[in-house]
Amino acid sequence: MIKAGIIGASGYTGGELLRLLVNHPNVKLELATSRSLAGKPVTSTHKHLEGFLDLKYENPNSENIRERCDVVFVAVPHGSAMDYVPELLDGDTKVIDLSADYRLETSVFEKVYETTHSDPRKTVYGLVELHPEAAEEDFVANPGCFPTGAILAAAPLAAAGLIDLAVFDSKTGISGAGISPTEASHYPNLAENITAYKLTTHRHKAEIFQELTKLDQKLRNINFTPHVIPSIRGIFTTAHLFINEPLSTDDLKTIYEGFYRDRPFIRFPSGVPSLSAVRGSNFCDMGFESDKENNRVIVLSAIDNLVKGASGQAIQNMNLMFGLDETRGLWLPAAAP
Amino acid sequence: MIKAGIIGASGYTGGELLRLLVNHPNVKLELATSRSLAGKPVTSTHKHLEGFLDLKYENPNSENIRERCDVVFVAVPHGSAMDYVPELLDGDTKVIDLSADYRLETSVFEKVYETTHSDPRKTVYGLVELHPEAAEEDFVANPGCFPTGAILAAAPLAAAGLIDLAVFDSKTGISGAGISPTEASHYPNLAENITAYKLTTHRHKAEIFQELTKLDQKLRNINFTPHVIPSIRGIFTTAHLFINEPLSTDDLKTIYEGFYRDRPFIRFPSGVPSLSAVRGSNFCDMGFESDKENNRVIVLSAIDNLVKGASGQAIQNMNLMFGLDETRGLWLPAAAP
Amino acid sequence: MIKAGIIGASGYTGGELLRLLVNHPNVKLELATSRSLAGKPVTSTHKHLEGFLDLKYENPNSENIRERCDVVFVAVPHGSAMDYVPELLDGDTKVIDLSADYRLETSVFEKVYETTHSDPRKTVYGLVELHPEAAEEDFVANPGCFPTGAILAAAPLAAAGLIDLAVFDSKTGISGAGISPTEASHYPNLAENITAYKLTTHRHKAEIFQELTKLDQKLRNINFTPHVIPSIRGIFTTAHLFINEPLSTDDLKTIYEGFYRDRPFIRFPSGVPSLSAVRGSNFCDMGFESDKENNRVIVLSAIDNLVKGASGQAIQNMNLMFGLDETRGLWLPAAAP
Amino acid sequence: MIKAGIIGASGYTGGELLRLLVNHPNVKLELATSRSLAGKPVTSTHKHLEGFLDLKYENPNSENIRERCDVVFVAVPHGSAMDYVPELLDGDTKVIDLSADYRLETSVFEKVYETTHSDPRKTVYGLVELHPEAAEEDFVANPGCFPTGAILAAAPLAAAGLIDLAVFDSKTGISGAGISPTEASHYPNLAENITAYKLTTHRHKAEIFQELTKLDQKLRNINFTPHVIPSIRGIFTTAHLFINEPLSTDDLKTIYEGFYRDRPFIRFPSGVPSLSAVRGSNFCDMGFESDKENNRVIVLSAIDNLVKGASGQAIQNMNLMFGLDETRGLWLPAAAP
Repeated sequence: MIKAGIIGASGYTGGELLRLLVNHPNVKLELATSRSLAGKPVTSTHKHLEGFLDLKYENPNSENIRERCDVVFVAVPHGSAMDYVPELLDGDTKVIDLSADYRLETSVFEKVYETTHSDPRKTVYGLVELHPEAAEEDFVANPGCFPTGAILAAAPLAAAGLIDLAVFDSKTGISGAGISPTEASHYPNLAENITAYKLTTHRHKAEIFQELTKLDQKLRNINFTPHVIPSIRGIFTTAHLFINEPLSTDDLKTIYEGFYRDRPFIRFPSGVPSLSAVRGSNFCDMGFESDKENNRVIVLSAIDNLVKGASGQAIQNMNLMFGLDETRGLWLPAAAP
Repeated sequence: MIKAGIIGASGYTGGELLRLLVNHPNVKLELATSRSLAGKPVTSTHKHLEGFLDLKYENPNSENIRERCDVVFVAVPHGSAMDYVPELLDGDTKVIDLSADYRLETSVFEKVYETTHSDPRKTVYGLVELHPEAAEEDFVANPGCFPTGAILAAAPLAAAGLIDLAVFDSKTGISGAGISPTEASHYPNLAENITAYKLTTHRHKAEIFQELTKLDQKLRNINFTPHVIPSIRGIFTTAHLFINEPLSTDDLKTIYEGFYRDRPFIRFPSGVPSLSAVRGSNFCDMGFESDKENNRVIVLSAIDNLVKGASGQAIQNMNLMFGLDETRGLWLPAAAP
Repeated sequence: MIKAGIIGASGYTGGELLRLLVNHPNVKLELATSRSLAGKPVTSTHKHLEGFLDLKYENPNSENIRERCDVVFVAVPHGSAMDYVPELLDGDTKVIDLSADYRLETSVFEKVYETTHSDPRKTVYGLVELHPEAAEEDFVANPGCFPTGAILAAAPLAAAGLIDLAVFDSKTGISGAGISPTEASHYPNLAENITAYKLTTHRHKAEIFQELTKLDQKLRNINFTPHVIPSIRGIFTTAHLFINEPLSTDDLKTIYEGFYRDRPFIRFPSGVPSLSAVRGSNFCDMGFESDKENNRVIVLSAIDNLVKGASGQAIQNMNLMFGLDETRGLWLPAAAP
Repeated sequence: MIKAGIIGASGYTGGELLRLLVNHPNVKLELATSRSLAGKPVTSTHKHLEGFLDLKYENPNSENIRERCDVVFVAVPHGSAMDYVPELLDGDTKVIDLSADYRLETSVFEKVYETTHSDPRKTVYGLVELHPEAAEEDFVANPGCFPTGAILAAAPLAAAGLIDLAVFDSKTGISGAGISPTEASHYPNLAENITAYKLTTHRHKAEIFQELTKLDQKLRNINFTPHVIPSIRGIFTTAHLFINEPLSTDDLKTIYEGFYRDRPFIRFPSGVPSLSAVRGSNFCDMGFESDKENNRVIVLSAIDNLVKGASGQAIQNMNLMFGLDETRGLWLPAAAP
């Protein structure tokens, strides 16, 4: 059994790692840390896991953690992960970081996050549909939630060099904002409403741009505007992609199904994808349509931000890093409706 | 008192006309029609209006209606309004049509709605912020809900000839789909979800294009993709406008506030506009931001689809057609939260 | 014009007072206080009121307030109102307190709120359907939200001495918990959920009991359990009333319609009342059914917690205290759906 | 492998059986019927199951079904199950009926459902926490959703002969009303609202009464009023239980934990149970509090109506009927939040 630890287990991504790992056939949950909750049962805050695990939150101690664990998931805020990662990487323990700290080229990271990186390091961007080489690594940077939906939606056309201009209009559930109550998550502010934020400056734009330009160096820029909708989970991305040669909807189908052949978590349901059909699961469902009157195609993607957009994808990386089938422990359908 | 009639009063726009007219100081509600409910009290279906009116639904009879009414609101489905309008227009009765039948150039209408128009007729498009000449008319075509939000968002830049490419990514509440239960309005399908539909082919695209090209004949095309969010009311429009000269957010502020000077129902709240702040009211709240890295500006507009997007705007037209202040009976703030 | 002031205007009940008073034909809004926001425009926080008022928040100063105002609404937290009320009551200024400070017999208050009352004073409980004598007062204690729904539901049967046992199972929207984000109002905690709280010990129980025993001294106790549902506004009360003689549903209809004859804000729609039909309005809609197999009747009441359950009711009191029709400024239907 | 068939697989309970069975380690899904969808892939309607099964809907044919299946789940509407059950019971095939047809004593059934039963038959009521003898049966009547929550909440006190009077005030998500759009499930009617229905006459009352009187024959009657809240899944039951001797909250804890000792799907989380913590899972979470001032206790239970209230419980029965651990294939935590 793979002994797994979670640093920062009290939040939503931590909870989701726990939910998926308690039933993973190859994993034994070894430890879960939380500075503020140390000593308390994990189920005192993640009540839905009552009966599934007996762990108590611990204070994080890197030396102790790497001794006890074969794999460590780092689920702490951006800027804090870089305090743990170098101490955990001992050549033996595998580490998957769910923060943004290692996703970007260091120079880009420092500009976008307006901070100095204390641990510059080259890492694989763990979107395994594009980066199967994650399987060879000891350390992987797990992608951001918005970028997962946006990159998967645009990658086949970017790889074909077809994109002139990309506008990603993304809609997320509020769980992406975390477990602590805020103005944005206050029910009277969110219910029956929608809001947009960081209209032109969201940090995830840099991730999307970095990954798409790896596929097509001609791309000059991308446009990304995130919204929050009254939903707990899910990210629905509407990619308005202006292309440089005409493509029918059938052409799109051929390109996308070809690009994602044998990728178990990519599906192309008939009609428009739905957050319901992916909720709680690791799938990315996609749909598309060619705009006959404009040189535009619409690509829609639906993911669960906490699963494929965070913890599920992290476990998908873990599976590959340990030589397991990537679906192990993740082959769970959404509980629709 | 202006005697008012509503043809097709049992739906949501009919109900909203009733709600706003029962307290309008210059209006007496004379009649409300519904073929299927004829003989039943209006409040048997619009229960929130109990205590406010005593009308019973009647069968529609155009001759009788134009005799009894000074103004008639036609709130029947697209394709049916053209059966009533010519019979109502007797040179005396004023008519406001909330359907799509008279909004477009006839040839465009026939193509978009795939039908022959039985009553080709030139009409003012009653978006009074752009068409104050509605005040001089006996007959006005009331704008569609999505077009109201989209056109108001883009008009100032279109009028300045600044728009190269426009992508309208619109998000509506479900009341726009009507009072009858459907797959789309089924709570388990909509709650905690979002969907897109008619990704590239929604009929409202033609209205948006028609009105923006009146302001800027150079516009070749526009892009419009509608979504439905888990909200009863409201349309939030994210206009991604690619422009042909750099504009700062301050420039945008100057252009928009100048363009809409003295337009009482256009507001520019600080921050991102909110459906909450306009719900139940006739306001269109707007915000904007310049994208420093791209030649793009984001313009956001928030309206109540049933008020500024339908019945409130119809009454705004009525006010002007009768020489009243356009805010009469409509000067009601949203009941936020 | 009646010059009105609001102490504590930045919360939801303050905002609702402002929304209703800006259009009240007999009122001029004179001042609105907020310690934390003093100097800022009221519309900087109540954005839906943009265009309706120009006030800036002020620091509260009782002497200044009573000089400038004919009526003062006190909308501060429980325990704080008693600091203002005695200073405001100068024999001239009328005061309406929306807090719990003066609703209960002083001895009961001190026990239930576990504090000493600094200003013991006999006051009318301003549920005007039961206490029209509020019209004669300079100072009125405005009822709590849950008690408004529960008392109105049970009063006719209590007044007839028919109740043996009363179980009030109440369901409220979250706005009753206030404008500040909390665990309870965190969208992921509330959406798609329901919770119960203070299962047997909610303070509003004392109000309900006090008022019902005024109508029927034989009542020994009542049972009250509040719930929060995923709704911004509204309180739906399910009163399970066990009675000491058989009553048919028709009997109930006769008793209730008789008891509330000529009470403009009490309605008896056909079927089950709906929060939609009262949202934003001052109505209490009621329905009932006799349980043929048990000696039980079910009475259902629906109110908007912020209007009939707080600010609307406060204005209803004000109207009466100033000799106006009680519906003045309040005769607004809900914006359903 | 147990070969399983589902009659009536296109609805919500059918979909939930499929979701849980595709990953059940001892089950092979053999067939799924739907008259209206025969010939279409099951995933054409249950899109969340894409990738998990290849079945096509078939027309139901009892002879064929019992030949191909070791166990058949009957998930057709009330009144239709009795057309299938006798044909399926061949002494070999095991049958679990999710309808109401076999839950009640025949005479009670005929009165409550106002119909003649074509197949009177004595059956075990498959609430396995109370009826472990289901393990010995070939045919089990799976309990109703409301009764599951209500009976589990009251059983320990009923078994102790402590209940004088029981009021079950239940709140369900809308999925209990099925997959077809209705007035009740129309988003504008349900969102931000709550409704009550069949206030005193819901058919599930007979089930609750039947099972509780098996535990305490002195019970004369029970009171049950169902509500629908804006939630897709979940039933939250507030049981107001008036008891004949004083019990503290600690006493309740002792009684309940003792009664449900070693029942894996019954949990007693701290605080008030939450629909979030059971959503998608087979758990029944409970909480309770003694009312110090009245002879009342409040017991709260939370279940997922489609899982413990329907399909999960059916599989729990299947597990026992085949000698498997009752948690097999069901040991899945909720995906909270």
